[in-house]
Amino acid sequence: MTKTILLKNRPQGKPSISNFEFTKDDSELSIKDGELLLETTYVSVDPYLRGRMSDAKSYVPPFKLNEPVHSGVIAKVISSKNEKFTEGDYVSGMLNWQTKQVSNGEGLNKVDPSKAPLSAYLGILGMTGLTAYCGLTEIGKPKKGETLVVSGAAGAVGSVVGQIGKILGLRVIGIAGSDEKVELLKSKFGFDEGINYNTTENMQEAIAKAAPNGVDVYFDNVGGPISDGVLVNINQLARIIICGAISVYNSTEAPKSLSVQPFLVKNSALMQGFIVSNYAAKFPEAIKQLATWLAEDKLTYSETVVEGFDNIPQAFIDLFDGKNKGKMVVKI
Amino acid sequence: MTKTILLKNRPQGKPSISNFEFTKDDSELSIKDGELLLETTYVSVDPYLRGRMSDAKSYVPPFKLNEPVHSGVIAKVISSKNEKFTEGDYVSGMLNWQTKQVSNGEGLNKVDPSKAPLSAYLGILGMTGLTAYCGLTEIGKPKKGETLVVSGAAGAVGSVVGQIGKILGLRVIGIAGSDEKVELLKSKFGFDEGINYNTTENMQEAIAKAAPNGVDVYFDNVGGPISDGVLVNINQLARIIICGAISVYNSTEAPKSLSVQPFLVKNSALMQGFIVSNYAAKFPEAIKQLATWLAEDKLTYSETVVEGFDNIPQAFIDLFDGKNKGKMVVKI
Repeated sequence: MTKTILLKNRPQGKPSISNFEFTKDDSELSIKDGELLLETTYVSVDPYLRGRMSDAKSYVPPFKLNEPVHSGVIAKVISSKNEKFTEGDYVSGMLNWQTKQVSNGEGLNKVDPSKAPLSAYLGILGMTGLTAYCGLTEIGKPKKGETLVVSGAAGAVGSVVGQIGKILGLRVIGIAGSDEKVELLKSKFGFDEGINYNTTENMQEAIAKAAPNGVDVYFDNVGGPISDGVLVNINQLARIIICGAISVYNSTEAPKSLSVQPFLVKNSALMQGFIVSNYAAKFPEAIKQLATWLAEDKLTYSETVVEGFDNIPQAFIDLFDGKNKGKMVVKI
Repeated sequence: MTKTILLKNRPQGKPSISNFEFTKDDSELSIKDGELLLETTYVSVDPYLRGRMSDAKSYVPPFKLNEPVHSGVIAKVISSKNEKFTEGDYVSGMLNWQTKQVSNGEGLNKVDPSKAPLSAYLGILGMTGLTAYCGLTEIGKPKKGETLVVSGAAGAVGSVVGQIGKILGLRVIGIAGSDEKVELLKSKFGFDEGINYNTTENMQEAIAKAAPNGVDVYFDNVGGPISDGVLVNINQLARIIICGAISVYNSTEAPKSLSVQPFLVKNSALMQGFIVSNYAAKFPEAIKQLATWLAEDKLTYSETVVEGFDNIPQAFIDLFDGKNKGKMVVKI
C-alpha cells in the first residue's frame, strides 16, 4: 500500500491539517528501465514550504492543488533498474510525501549511513547546514572579533550559524523564544549570549546590552519586530543576511515593520535575501568543511524527530509554533 | 564684513528658519603662511544635511550647535599664502556657510570655469554626479535591457541616474511629485516613463504597468510608501540602491513601511545603503566618464539657483517640499 499526502487547498494564514488530504492506493508500483523504487525513511519539514503552498510569485513555482507535497527526503532503494543505484542504497533528494515512489534517479544523491546518521543528511550535512554556511560566509563575510546576531537561533539553521560564528572567532548572540532554548544556545551551541524575545520588553535595549560594540553581521530568520530591534543596533558596513521571515509568513495582509532605508543609508549597510541554491557552486566545499567540523566535534546539532508518516503535516504546522528544537524531521 | 550662518538648535521634524542664526562680523580676516582667503561663490544645499543637524548616530558627526553649518561650496581665492593656490583661482570643498573664510587648503580642489559652469562642480561633476554614477554602477550593476526605477527622479541625483541608465541601455522609469516634473523626465532627461506619485492612487499598479518585465534595479532616494510600491514589483536578483530616504528624514518617530524581508528572500534581492565617499577610489574614473558624457551632450542637468547668502537656510528647507528641480544651489 502506498500512502500519499496531497495539498488540498492553500493555507490562509497559519497552515492547518484541513489544507492536506491523505490518500491510499493498493496497486503495486512497478519500475521501468532506468527507474528505482524508493521507500521513504525520513521526511524534512521546513518553513519555506509555506511559501510554496501559496500561489504568490516566488523563486519556485507553487505546489499544485491535489498533487503530492514534496520536500527533502531520505529514502531506501527497494529495487533498481538504474545502473547508478543498487538495492539497499540510501539516497537524498526532493521527493514526494509518499511512503513509496518511483524515481528516474535525477537529482538524487547517495548518502552513507556509516558516516553520519541518516537524518543528518537532511540537516547539518544537507540544506540546513548549507544554508547556514553559505549565507553566513558568502553574504555575511564575517571577520574575527566582529559581533554576530542570529534570530531563530535555536532553529535548525540558526544553531549552525551561531556555531560557525564561534568557530570563526566572532561574538555570537542568539535570539530565541523560550528560556529553555536560550539556555540551550549557551550550553549546547556555545553562543556568548541569548535573548528570549517572549520575555523581553525592549528588544532594542536587550540587543544593545548583549552587543556593546554594535552588530556587524545579522543572520535573520524571522523578520518582524525582532529584526527591528537588531536594525537599530547595526554598525557601519553591517551585513544583514535575510534567510527567512517566519514571523510574517502566515500574515494574510502585507506586514509593516520599521523602515529599513534610513538605517541602511546611515550605516552603508547591506541586506541580501537568498536561497541556498544561489550558492550551488559552493556546495562541495561547504559540505566538506561541515563534515570536517562535525568529525572534529566542533559542530553539534539538535533535531526533533516526529514518528509516523501520517504526522508529517502536523510536524510542519508545529514549526510555526516553534515546537521544534533544531531540525524537524519525520521518521517513517 | 563677514556673514555667517550658525546652527542654533536641532530641527524637530521639518527644519525651519528658527533653527538657524545669522551673524555679522566687521573685523578684517587675515591669513598666515599656508593659508588662503576665500570668498564664497556658490553654496550647495542637500537633503543629507538634515541628518547632520540631528544628534542621532550617523556616518558623520553631527553639526555642533552655535557653530557654522558647512556643505559643498565653490569659492574664489581672494589672497593666498599657499603655494598650491593663487589669487583668482576657483576651488570646491566642504566649507562654512560664510561669505568669507580662511582655509589651509586641505580638502580643496581647483575647478576650471572654462570647462563647465562653476555650479556644475557642485552638481553633475561633483557629489551629485558621483553619487549617481557610483551608486548605480557599483551597487546596481545594471545590464543592458534591464529595467531601472528611480525615485526622486527629477532631483539632482535622480535625473543623472536616469540618464546614465539610458546611456547604458536600460528601460528607465522615474517617479516624481508633479506632472511638470514627470514631463521634464521624459522631454529633457530621456526617461521612458514617468509616474507622478502625488496623483497616483496605487503605486504598485502604476509601477507594474510602467515596468511590464518587473524591476531589476531600483535607485531609491525617498523610502516610504513609494518604495513599498516598487518593492512589490522587483525581479529575481534585483538590486536596490538606498541613496536616501528623504520621505522619512523629518519623521520625529521611527516610520513604518512594508516589511522588506519577505520580498528580499523571495527574490534573492539585495538592498545596499551607501554614501558616496565609500567609493572614493572610483572618483577619478567617474568624473572622467561624466565629463566625457557631458561634453558629448549625452548628459544634461537641471539646477535651481537661489540668489543671496541670506536665503541659504530657506533653500535648504525648500528641498523637503520638493521646490527644486535638479540640484539646488545658492549663488552668493
